[in-house]
Order: sequence, then structure tokens, then C-alpha cells
Amino acid sequence: MRDAIVGAAFQLFGERGFEQTTVDDIVALAGVGRRSFFRYFPSKESVVFPDHEGCLEGMTAFLADPAGDADDPVARVCEATRMVFRMYAANPEFSVRRYELTRQIPALRAHEAAVVRRYERTLADYLRGRFADRADGSLRAEAIAASVAAAHNHALRIWLRAGGRADAEPDVERAMAYVAEAWSERPDKALADGASEPDEVVVVVARRGAPMWRVVRGVQEALEKH
Amino acid sequence: MRDAIVGAAFQLFGERGFEQTTVDDIVALAGVGRRSFFRYFPSKESVVFPDHEGCLEGMTAFLADPAGDADDPVARVCEATRMVFRMYAANPEFSVRRYELTRQIPALRAHEAAVVRRYERTLADYLRGRFADRADGSLRAEAIAASVAAAHNHALRIWLRAGGRADAEPDVERAMAYVAEAWSERPDKALADGASEPDEVVVVVARRGAPMWRVVRGVQEALEKH
Repeated sequence: MRDAIVGAAFQLFGERGFEQTTVDDIVALAGVGRRSFFRYFPSKESVVFPDHEGCLEGMTAFLADPAGDADDPVARVCEATRMVFRMYAANPEFSVRRYELTRQIPALRAHEAAVVRRYERTLADYLRGRFADRADGSLRAEAIAASVAAAHNHALRIWLRAGGRADAEPDVERAMAYVAEAWSERPDKALADGASEPDEVVVVVARRGAPMWRVVRGVQEALEKH
Repeated sequence: MRDAIVGAAFQLFGERGFEQTTVDDIVALAGVGRRSFFRYFPSKESVVFPDHEGCLEGMTAFLADPAGDADDPVARVCEATRMVFRMYAANPEFSVRRYELTRQIPALRAHEAAVVRRYERTLADYLRGRFADRADGSLRAEAIAASVAAAHNHALRIWLRAGGRADAEPDVERAMAYVAEAWSERPDKALADGASEPDEVVVVVARRGAPMWRVVRGVQEALEKH
């Protein structure tokens, strides 16, 4: 019944436009009652995004799984965010059609913005838990969640604008890797393992004009050799 | 007239609730016509956020000013984002009242999410221009804009929950500095200026267990002294 409602809604949105279609029109075409409609969807807008509730639940369950507690927190939210892309990619034609529709209708854009906020909050809640022992935990959680969602949506939009072509997954991978890298701990943490041998010294000679990455790499290589 | 409409609206929202107040109620109390209302505000929701349009315009103008072209792009969007906090801080009582109202009304939260999206887009558009020559420019622009907005909103929420107390500016400063630091170029870019004097050398002695940031700082200090 749910699928029949979504099918009827999109048929009517295509034929007469979103604004000109009422819930009554949709239920009449789908052959169901208004109450059935509102059992599945709180509003006409929400029919356009029928899979987000399920995806949000899946994401929440994935993040609640203690199996992920050993993973890097940022890697874990990136993995959770890939679920959203996979939902779009499972039905490229529908996703592209919806994207075209959403671009034209402010009410749908607002609805979509609210959905994005819920994904962001799900990611931020998870990160807040993982960062509970950090003074910057809550701020860090929200900034990371927002940038992961933005990077995902950037890649998703590229894919949608390209008509949902099959080879866009790498764009999502690249976008997720990009934010994960930006939020990885700074090099000062990278060598924490070395802290147990505090007395060895390393001498680095660097040219004044040398780029700092080369200096840092030199230090790292020297430390590894020792 | 604009202020009269806002004043009447908030009086009625407080007395009978947001949902129970109509635009007709507001214009009746304000002593203006419906057309005047809609000249200033596209909807009842938008009366609750009367200053965002002006703030968005101010932000756009600030970012368009060529005087900022020499600034670090991320520092520039952080500065632009502080304008939003200053708008809230200019009227703490109203801001806190609105925050309480918005928390209770889903339609207002949706409206606010849409406003946040517009700020984010304004920041992202600016950054996209500044990063035009980078392969990762567009992705970087959107990820940074989202995290700057999220960090700002995190600090803003702390301030609102604390009743708009006067000393919250440092929280915003800290939040802006936090994202700026996360997105600053890695140390490899930090010394590009030194590239014109390629022949001086610097010797740094570092303990093996020293955190890398201390090594890098040592190199930087040595380079500055030379």
C-alpha cells in the first residue's frame, strides 16, 4: 500500500505538478483512504522522501552496534553516512526524478533540509558519545557531523546531476576520505607510541626555504630509523 | 511598521501560542493591513526571524568586499559568521525568547533549518570562489562552510541555553578558532613564505618521544630567528 501511494503521488506530481496535487488526489489514484495515507506519511512532502525514515533507523542501529566501538569514530560516521548514498544508489531513476522535483519546489527543499538535519544530529549524537571524555567533545562532534554530511551531499549532488550514473561511488569514497583526513588528529598525536622512549634524540638539518612537509617527513623518517 | 508587526506577533505567540495565532490576529493587533504584513514577511514563520534577511545581506556584502581577498579564506568566513552571533547578542532577551519558542514549534525549527542552510550556502559560495583553483575546491568549500556553521550554532546554543548571558562571546571565538584550526593547511603549507631564501639551514634537536607539534614548533621558531 505504501508503494502504491508513492507511485500514485509521483505519477500525479509528474502530470500536474507537486503544488497542484492534493493528498485527496493521491489517495484517489492509489485507491486507498486518507487515513491510510497519514498512517504512512505525516505530510504530502514526506511522500517524496519515503525511504529516509528507514535509512535513519538503519543508521541509528548501525551506530548503536557495540561492534563499532573499536573503530575510529570519524571512520564510523563516514561508514554510516555511506548508507544514505547506497539508499539513493539502489534506485537511481527514482532518486534523479526526486532530485529534479525537489529543486523546483521550495517546500520540498525545506523538507529535505530538515531530513539532512536529522542525519546530522544522528551522527553528532554518536560522536558526542564517543568523545565524551574530551573537553572539546560536543563541539568536535557537531563540527565533524556537519562536515561529513556536507561532503556526502556534495558527492551525492554530483551523482544526481550526472543522472545517477553507476560509477559515482568513488566520489562518495573520496568525499568521505577527505573529511576523515581533515579531522584526523594532528601529527602531534601520530607519534604517541614513541613516548615510551623519551631519551633518544634526533637531529634534523633543514634548509630555511624547505617546505615544512619535507621537514616533518625528514623528522619522521629519522625517528623511524632510530 | 515592521517592528510593530514583530512586537504584536510575539505578544500573541506568548499569550495564545504560535499555532493558535493567525496573520489576521497579528495585523489586527499591530493596526496594519495584511498586505503590509506580506510586504515585510513571506509567512508567519518568518516574523519569528525578522533579522536574518538583513544579516544575510550584511554577510554577503562583507564577503564580497575585495578588502578581504588577502585574508585567509577560512578566517574570513569565521569573521562573517560572527556577524550572526552579534545579531543575536544585540538583543539577548528577544533571542532567548525566540529560542524557547522555536524549540517548541516544528514549523519554526524547519524554518530555522532553512535559514541555516542559506548562511551555509553564502559561506560555501564565497569559499568556492576563493578555492577556484583547487581540484578539491568545491568539496572543501562545502565541508568547511558546514562545519563553521555547526560550530557557530553550537556556541550560540550554549549562549541561548544560558539565558543569553553577556560573557558568551569567548565560546563563539573558541568555536571559530577550533574549526579554523581543523581546516588550516597542514604544516607543509605554513612556511611557503620562506621559499625565497633557500640556502640557510636550521638544525633542530628533538627528543625521540617529543610530540610532533613540539618538533614542528621548534623548527618554526628556529626559522623565525634566522
